[in-house]
Amino acid sequence: MLDTAIRNATIVTAADRTKAEIGIKDGRIIAIAEDIGPAREEIDATGLLALPGGIDAHVHLEQPQGGGVVMADGFESGTRSAAAGGNTTVLPFALQQRGQSLREAVEAYHAAAKGKCYVDTSFHLIITDPTPQVLGQELPALVKAGYTSFKVFMTYDDMVLNDAQLIEVFDLARREKAMVMVHAEGYDAIRYMARRLEEAGKTAPYYHAESRPQSVEREATHRAISHAELTNVPITIVHVSGREPMEQIQWAKKHGLNIFAETCPQYIALTAEDLKGLDMDFEGAKYVCSPPPRDLDSQKAIWEGLRDGTFDIFSSDHCPFRFDDPKGKNVQGARSSFRWVPNGIPGIETRLPILFSEGVSKGRISLERFVALTATNPAKLFGLYPRKGSIAVGADADITLWDPSREVVISQALMHHDCDYTPYEGFEVTGWPVRTILRGQTIFCEGDVIGAPGTGAYLERGTSQAFGG
Amino acid sequence: MLDTAIRNATIVTAADRTKAEIGIKDGRIIAIAEDIGPAREEIDATGLLALPGGIDAHVHLEQPQGGGVVMADGFESGTRSAAAGGNTTVLPFALQQRGQSLREAVEAYHAAAKGKCYVDTSFHLIITDPTPQVLGQELPALVKAGYTSFKVFMTYDDMVLNDAQLIEVFDLARREKAMVMVHAEGYDAIRYMARRLEEAGKTAPYYHAESRPQSVEREATHRAISHAELTNVPITIVHVSGREPMEQIQWAKKHGLNIFAETCPQYIALTAEDLKGLDMDFEGAKYVCSPPPRDLDSQKAIWEGLRDGTFDIFSSDHCPFRFDDPKGKNVQGARSSFRWVPNGIPGIETRLPILFSEGVSKGRISLERFVALTATNPAKLFGLYPRKGSIAVGADADITLWDPSREVVISQALMHHDCDYTPYEGFEVTGWPVRTILRGQTIFCEGDVIGAPGTGAYLERGTSQAFGG
Amino acid sequence: MLDTAIRNATIVTAADRTKAEIGIKDGRIIAIAEDIGPAREEIDATGLLALPGGIDAHVHLEQPQGGGVVMADGFESGTRSAAAGGNTTVLPFALQQRGQSLREAVEAYHAAAKGKCYVDTSFHLIITDPTPQVLGQELPALVKAGYTSFKVFMTYDDMVLNDAQLIEVFDLARREKAMVMVHAEGYDAIRYMARRLEEAGKTAPYYHAESRPQSVEREATHRAISHAELTNVPITIVHVSGREPMEQIQWAKKHGLNIFAETCPQYIALTAEDLKGLDMDFEGAKYVCSPPPRDLDSQKAIWEGLRDGTFDIFSSDHCPFRFDDPKGKNVQGARSSFRWVPNGIPGIETRLPILFSEGVSKGRISLERFVALTATNPAKLFGLYPRKGSIAVGADADITLWDPSREVVISQALMHHDCDYTPYEGFEVTGWPVRTILRGQTIFCEGDVIGAPGTGAYLERGTSQAFGG
Amino acid sequence: MLDTAIRNATIVTAADRTKAEIGIKDGRIIAIAEDIGPAREEIDATGLLALPGGIDAHVHLEQPQGGGVVMADGFESGTRSAAAGGNTTVLPFALQQRGQSLREAVEAYHAAAKGKCYVDTSFHLIITDPTPQVLGQELPALVKAGYTSFKVFMTYDDMVLNDAQLIEVFDLARREKAMVMVHAEGYDAIRYMARRLEEAGKTAPYYHAESRPQSVEREATHRAISHAELTNVPITIVHVSGREPMEQIQWAKKHGLNIFAETCPQYIALTAEDLKGLDMDFEGAKYVCSPPPRDLDSQKAIWEGLRDGTFDIFSSDHCPFRFDDPKGKNVQGARSSFRWVPNGIPGIETRLPILFSEGVSKGRISLERFVALTATNPAKLFGLYPRKGSIAVGADADITLWDPSREVVISQALMHHDCDYTPYEGFEVTGWPVRTILRGQTIFCEGDVIGAPGTGAYLERGTSQAFGG
Repeated sequence: MLDTAIRNATIVTAADRTKAEIGIKDGRIIAIAEDIGPAREEIDATGLLALPGGIDAHVHLEQPQGGGVVMADGFESGTRSAAAGGNTTVLPFALQQRGQSLREAVEAYHAAAKGKCYVDTSFHLIITDPTPQVLGQELPALVKAGYTSFKVFMTYDDMVLNDAQLIEVFDLARREKAMVMVHAEGYDAIRYMARRLEEAGKTAPYYHAESRPQSVEREATHRAISHAELTNVPITIVHVSGREPMEQIQWAKKHGLNIFAETCPQYIALTAEDLKGLDMDFEGAKYVCSPPPRDLDSQKAIWEGLRDGTFDIFSSDHCPFRFDDPKGKNVQGARSSFRWVPNGIPGIETRLPILFSEGVSKGRISLERFVALTATNPAKLFGLYPRKGSIAVGADADITLWDPSREVVISQALMHHDCDYTPYEGFEVTGWPVRTILRGQTIFCEGDVIGAPGTGAYLERGTSQAFGG
Repeated sequence: MLDTAIRNATIVTAADRTKAEIGIKDGRIIAIAEDIGPAREEIDATGLLALPGGIDAHVHLEQPQGGGVVMADGFESGTRSAAAGGNTTVLPFALQQRGQSLREAVEAYHAAAKGKCYVDTSFHLIITDPTPQVLGQELPALVKAGYTSFKVFMTYDDMVLNDAQLIEVFDLARREKAMVMVHAEGYDAIRYMARRLEEAGKTAPYYHAESRPQSVEREATHRAISHAELTNVPITIVHVSGREPMEQIQWAKKHGLNIFAETCPQYIALTAEDLKGLDMDFEGAKYVCSPPPRDLDSQKAIWEGLRDGTFDIFSSDHCPFRFDDPKGKNVQGARSSFRWVPNGIPGIETRLPILFSEGVSKGRISLERFVALTATNPAKLFGLYPRKGSIAVGADADITLWDPSREVVISQALMHHDCDYTPYEGFEVTGWPVRTILRGQTIFCEGDVIGAPGTGAYLERGTSQAFGG
Repeated sequence: MLDTAIRNATIVTAADRTKAEIGIKDGRIIAIAEDIGPAREEIDATGLLALPGGIDAHVHLEQPQGGGVVMADGFESGTRSAAAGGNTTVLPFALQQRGQSLREAVEAYHAAAKGKCYVDTSFHLIITDPTPQVLGQELPALVKAGYTSFKVFMTYDDMVLNDAQLIEVFDLARREKAMVMVHAEGYDAIRYMARRLEEAGKTAPYYHAESRPQSVEREATHRAISHAELTNVPITIVHVSGREPMEQIQWAKKHGLNIFAETCPQYIALTAEDLKGLDMDFEGAKYVCSPPPRDLDSQKAIWEGLRDGTFDIFSSDHCPFRFDDPKGKNVQGARSSFRWVPNGIPGIETRLPILFSEGVSKGRISLERFVALTATNPAKLFGLYPRKGSIAVGADADITLWDPSREVVISQALMHHDCDYTPYEGFEVTGWPVRTILRGQTIFCEGDVIGAPGTGAYLERGTSQAFGG
Repeated sequence: MLDTAIRNATIVTAADRTKAEIGIKDGRIIAIAEDIGPAREEIDATGLLALPGGIDAHVHLEQPQGGGVVMADGFESGTRSAAAGGNTTVLPFALQQRGQSLREAVEAYHAAAKGKCYVDTSFHLIITDPTPQVLGQELPALVKAGYTSFKVFMTYDDMVLNDAQLIEVFDLARREKAMVMVHAEGYDAIRYMARRLEEAGKTAPYYHAESRPQSVEREATHRAISHAELTNVPITIVHVSGREPMEQIQWAKKHGLNIFAETCPQYIALTAEDLKGLDMDFEGAKYVCSPPPRDLDSQKAIWEGLRDGTFDIFSSDHCPFRFDDPKGKNVQGARSSFRWVPNGIPGIETRLPILFSEGVSKGRISLERFVALTATNPAKLFGLYPRKGSIAVGADADITLWDPSREVVISQALMHHDCDYTPYEGFEVTGWPVRTILRGQTIFCEGDVIGAPGTGAYLERGTSQAFGG
């Protein structure tokens, strides 16, 4: 007998919509049929869509920061918020600090996450110190152990890799079949701009955006693509913010290079104007993230890219800092210059509603494309498929029941994160997650997280489909 | 109890691959599950792919020709050949002759097709005489009756519409929500080129290709797109042959226009060189079709377009004429000038193997993309979805079992059409249809067509998804 | 001894700026030197630029119109206005009416112009009826007689050529080495749009712009380029108005096609908003011309094209109709629908100041490029070079002395045309013609036209440099 | 009385061709006229073109090299060869060695050049060590003293600047109005490729080309453009070799960035195939230069760029090393790996004939464009105009008399350099310099250099026209 039956839903995959019943046993989908027979638990999904549980492939949780800054969300609150946002899997980062062994870094993150997670998780490895030891021994072993994706930074004092290091990491990734995610902004260019702005007395949060113009992201994107071309490896450019960097990715794809791309809610729902706050005040700090949101033309471009396949995945880049907190946005120095404002905004819970509402409800993308961007493609790109990413027989029963017509005004009061604000306060959406089911178990229902910390499992991942398959 | 069970197959949709069993009852798929239970008929598909039955959306059967020319295939042999090529649905044309009522034309085609078809069919309407009567009364009624797609020609003496007529038809199509397929080649330009070539004594079949350079197709494509933009209607540019017309479609899609595109096997497997035959002789007539095959650079471009979504569908443009036949390629006059060689080649049976082998087996496109191009997208574009186009619960049980590793050399001896040659003689493919199942009934198995004429049903179609949905 | 000496000017050509004296004898420049010696007439050009006399290659004068409409300017007032605007040569059209012999049309224009012109002139031939007689006999003879350029229209009831006719004319032009100017707007598309707008009650002058969107011009431009590619002939696309048609020309040039392009003041100084008049009233009729002015983005694009060589020439398309006149803009019917408003605006006198001020004074183009666009390139393109188009030894002494820093507010009071308004009323410019010298004779000085009707000569022209040389 | 009269020539500028006499006095052109009167020296240029003396803006002479390598040409032989190639001005580099004061470097080059030069010269400054002292004091002073252009390298162990340094130099160049020339190839990428090739045993000279693919140059070009955009300064990308880097420049120009570009004879007359020598032997070392010559498609692209204005100047990048010499191409280690082969080839004498023959004689570019690329534009770009760069009253009488129809086979026997080979041995050209006149004095005539070392003067330069003017 089935454990759970979901009846009367419209099942949506990245290609199809089907009216059928879903039968779940031992956490997996074992039948999709007109009549699946009896089950212990009945879920009536009349009027709802059954979507593959959201996979948020770009999430920062409990990462240590310099200067006494602390992230607002650890694994517990972060994954709780994820579940409430219709997600069943999130991929946070395990960050190597310079001088640190990557293996040790990974262990520390496991320790922090253990028993805390409401949804399934798996770590990308941030490489900040690609020593011969790291490249030659640790990474090959970690890839074999299921850590099949890396992230590298082209900016930030304590993480930036130079070109020689990037090339070494890319070369290794080709050999080991690991997917490299690239934060593409040019370090020296940003430092130059920040210095000039500060010298001109332009220190409000808004100037964060001016210090990182599109040209800075475009250049780094082009550079990363060129290194990937040279080393013949697929890479993913993450959090693409605007028309100019996006055009570099389009160029690369058109020329047959194996380049993947991600964008995020802040690039369709915010603009640099938001960083101005009220009359250029510190309210703008609530929107400080990197790359910064751009302008309406770039929003238009991002939609083109979401529609035409330039973008493969849509993630939150959840990176939360409390606003009214000296360990958050209000850290010492932040009011004296944008340079000290922690970079990042929360968004793990609002990712799916924003894309659904702005995209599907407004007719910009199809429902199937929504599923591809938020679940199927992330699973394929990061080695989770076919266990995750679709509603299919044999897959984990990770299912989000979605009400396509529910109208909600996003507000901090609705959020389940530990941040003290949402940058989308007052944003009106049509379409909202009603129930999140993780491996057959309901972990969120009608506003309440009902799973327990520790319900989420850690996932060893396979090789990205970018390497063929 | 199920009528039929397909076990041990890998089910492929436009998004997913699943190892599961398929349960069929009353011609429809009613279950996909790990264990579907017993069935009257057992099909063991070990080692095979279960693909949605091929939908060939561009097929000419039994269309009357001028000058005593007769098509090699009628509905019986054409759909027999289709079944043998892994197809379960084909969309032939019902051609209005000038002066004729469209309704009458449709009736005539029904009469010809009745009881003859091995696979399901439905007619596109070719409009050659858009009189007020046709536009104002016949077409609205026919669309309501399920004839939801038209075709128009921008060339050919007896079919060409001028710009004012094209715009009228497009305008009507927007109002009635019909999909217009456009044959985009410029009539006056071709006449000019043909005259110049003939004046220069260049009359061999090869000069057919020179009389219709890419610029002629590019111009007509641009013109059709502009008319569609003006009238605000989606259209489909059919049989796109080369880089230049394709770039027009890319431009249109990038600018948000609702333009769809089709390409065909001849544009990835043949070039204009084939029209030279042996030393510019009449053998070249075997490859005369319009637009003509281009060159290797265009083949490269077409692959880019198949991969990146420029092309939505892949059809055969099956238009067969017997070679050694005065009612076919050897019609009176054909040897005196390319102008009299009937335009068209057979291909309904080889469409899927050629795309699978050149695309999937050679790693140019994914299996999922193959399914999208050959079944799911045609179904969505022409109002057949979700009844047709995918392997999903509730859909017709139209399934092709495919052996991805079978190596076959294409030859006329293998073909089931009534044409006396195949333009792909000697072409080596990896991947071949083993069994074709139409609404649960096997109509082709291991080389033999085992269905009967009349098995195929006529399909009334709904509105194209291009109009939203 | 020299007839005339111009001293202390800065001589500007399309490549160079030189401080030197200019010596003139018998209407020609015979010396450019540091010291040219004595002369009968002394002109002190201290602080002024000596520019090649402007060549306005696109001017309508005294062309018969249907419906009782009469052009505001004939040869006398039109060339008077030209002289006052710093021009020494204008190229009006001789229009063949359907059924008329081209030779006869030419004779009629000669009769009208004889003894009337203040500046040199030469006729382009407008072909509206390309009969075998016209193509086979008249045109070859006329080209030999120095009428080395044609104009064809892709719209307008009484002038439109269809594609077959366009191709025939292009083919002839290649054989005879004549330059074809193309008015590129799609006839059927405009008629469709006009009908829809009228049906919706949208009849104000502003809807003229909506009836001819950029797509209509872009399509016709692409079509003309394709026909030129097919027939292998250089052509000039005239009065390019916006980004979209311009991009077609850029595509053509990039692909090595021999396509030339013209733009006009109305596309950098007006927008479609101007057609709205005051609250959508009839004032907008003052700005009705075809193609219509576009938007700010297109103005930006046009500047790119003026700078980067996309545009070869900059002409006025002077086509004047009096506003407050039942034989002009207020013709019967004009207030009932934009369709009856005569198409065209005056601009022969303001062309050079507007381009100089918006281009050179504002730093968008160099002085040398200004000269190229307004004199040197038109001369080369239309077979007047080296007699006209530059300040060089041996050339006609056609020189405009220009004050680069004079500030003028354009107003009807300043104009020398017979139109009763200027569309640039109130437009502020920096840079103004001080003196116009035609073949050594001052015909305009400090606001006064001092030449006499009949001073201007008729010019037989050679072959366009577009054909090599 | 005039010192010199040139009669019967066709004078060519970047815009015009004129039949007139040229009168010279005190080294300057003082008259261009139909009849300039008597002169002490008569030069009959019947049948010849009078071109502005060539300006070669990219020449390496007597630069110190590591590893005991010595350049084949010093100032004497280099400028002798230049004169024989129709040049009157060359711009070599003064190279700062790391740790060295730039002022001292400049003095050393002056000492080396003093009394040696046959043509006029002026130094670009190569900045390898942008210390605060160099940036803050030396460079501002040197710019004021007429050293108004810098060169920076993005590769080479002993010269490469990192991004922070590049940005600093660009920022300084904006403030001081200096033109920065950029050698755009990515250092780390090349090192990676070279290492991989060596590890694979691919060490022949040909692999020099494989170690620096177009992507490496494209990336660095994009990066340099982005830094220039950020710092808002014009720059010149030098020796652009192929389609991909060229497209970056086209992008930049199209977007209104003030980017200039240079290409060289090796990119239209050689390909990477030449580096293969005979069967991959060491003969290939004769063609080793950076960036390496590419392929026929890139040659095609370069011609597009020469024609359409993508390229502003055409220089030799003369950088000569003797082939059969242990201080040249055969330096110790060169036969063991391409990494040790000195980078550079001679070409100062063949630049003009190759561009004239392949460009003008073959109809790819006009004569006027030839003049612009080889004389007028370099003069304007590097602050030599209007003293140099055109044939105009008031300019230095730097004139090359050119026989457009003379057919010559290039060979080492004809060369006047001190290199022991020419990479263009056997190359057939139509068009050849007959006489080179420097400031009124003939320094080369019919194969013989008849000037003396020391005839050439050192030129203090003004500000580049790229900064306006």
